[in-house]
Amino acid sequence: MKSATEYLWFNTPHRRDYINITQTVADIVRKSGIQEGFVMVSAMHITASIYVNDAEDGLIEDIDEWLETLAPFRENYRHHRTGEDNGDAHLKNLLMHHQVLVPITGGNMDLGPWQQIYYAEFDGRRKKRVIVKAIGE
Amino acid sequence: MKSATEYLWFNTPHRRDYINITQTVADIVRKSGIQEGFVMVSAMHITASIYVNDAEDGLIEDIDEWLETLAPFRENYRHHRTGEDNGDAHLKNLLMHHQVLVPITGGNMDLGPWQQIYYAEFDGRRKKRVIVKAIGE
Amino acid sequence: MKSATEYLWFNTPHRRDYINITQTVADIVRKSGIQEGFVMVSAMHITASIYVNDAEDGLIEDIDEWLETLAPFRENYRHHRTGEDNGDAHLKNLLMHHQVLVPITGGNMDLGPWQQIYYAEFDGRRKKRVIVKAIGE
Repeated sequence: MKSATEYLWFNTPHRRDYINITQTVADIVRKSGIQEGFVMVSAMHITASIYVNDAEDGLIEDIDEWLETLAPFRENYRHHRTGEDNGDAHLKNLLMHHQVLVPITGGNMDLGPWQQIYYAEFDGRRKKRVIVKAIGE
Repeated sequence: MKSATEYLWFNTPHRRDYINITQTVADIVRKSGIQEGFVMVSAMHITASIYVNDAEDGLIEDIDEWLETLAPFRENYRHHRTGEDNGDAHLKNLLMHHQVLVPITGGNMDLGPWQQIYYAEFDGRRKKRVIVKAIGE
Repeated sequence: MKSATEYLWFNTPHRRDYINITQTVADIVRKSGIQEGFVMVSAMHITASIYVNDAEDGLIEDIDEWLETLAPFRENYRHHRTGEDNGDAHLKNLLMHHQVLVPITGGNMDLGPWQQIYYAEFDGRRKKRVIVKAIGE
């Protein structure tokens, strides 16, 4: 069994941002030399997500608006008694899930034609980390 | 390490459909000869999901109605400027997540008594693909 | 390749409960001797979830209230024609997802500073099971 582990760092300019990291993960997979296996991409923070969907700007705006409808910014989350103001970001993280697993076949990520891997930041302007870990053979 | 990879194809008669694929995945796992490991089942399209829940028709109708409430069909998604009309299907995919990982123990899928694997189609009447990939020993 | 499999049992006092199982999973990982790999934590029932987020009581109450808003208890789910009354618990399970995968690096779970693993029960006062399965080397 082979494995490879890398960490990606983000410090986004806005509170919410959606960053396509597909090429970065593809490069890590190729460098690993793993032919058959899985690569996990997982946010190490609880106010950010990793998801797979379309690289289409209109859709990304739709997603952002939709998340605000289902998990809105509010002043009065109980979590804010700790001094934080990011209760909505925790809920958005739960809704979008914080990780994906991508199959590796023949040495490359085995993604469908429109599948792109995104880092979604819900409480940015802070240093955040994502782990990319591949195992296989 | 052993691995096995298969692709399932779907072309559903309705725009939305829920198809139990548990037996198909179980057969792939047994054929692989893997005794201990994981099998991933992952939609390769961004308007379909894989989820694990109950094989109960009433519940499936409840799920479908609930998804329409939280991620409704609408004419005016920004994504529709591309000519598509499936913005809701992208959001339903994000809500339901596009993949599951099932443990393999003693040569079989290690599922609970009611856990069934479903392919959920949100933008059907098109050819769609699912990857089933097992790794282990 | 090494693997390790353990089952955790729960029988919660309330219908809904949120239980931090991070230490239990950490112990299983260390006992496995796996240095590099993945550990999966997955509910084996379809009315409970495993998620990763903050060990902060106010936030947990926020999450519980939020889930009740998006997937409310109702008398009239179609699923209840079977005699069950837990339709909402199935939907909460789908919203929160039933599993997480945690990277193992250098013999320990490779989690971010605030990432804690929770078992979320949505239909308690029954015996329920969670599988913890690690593979790696």
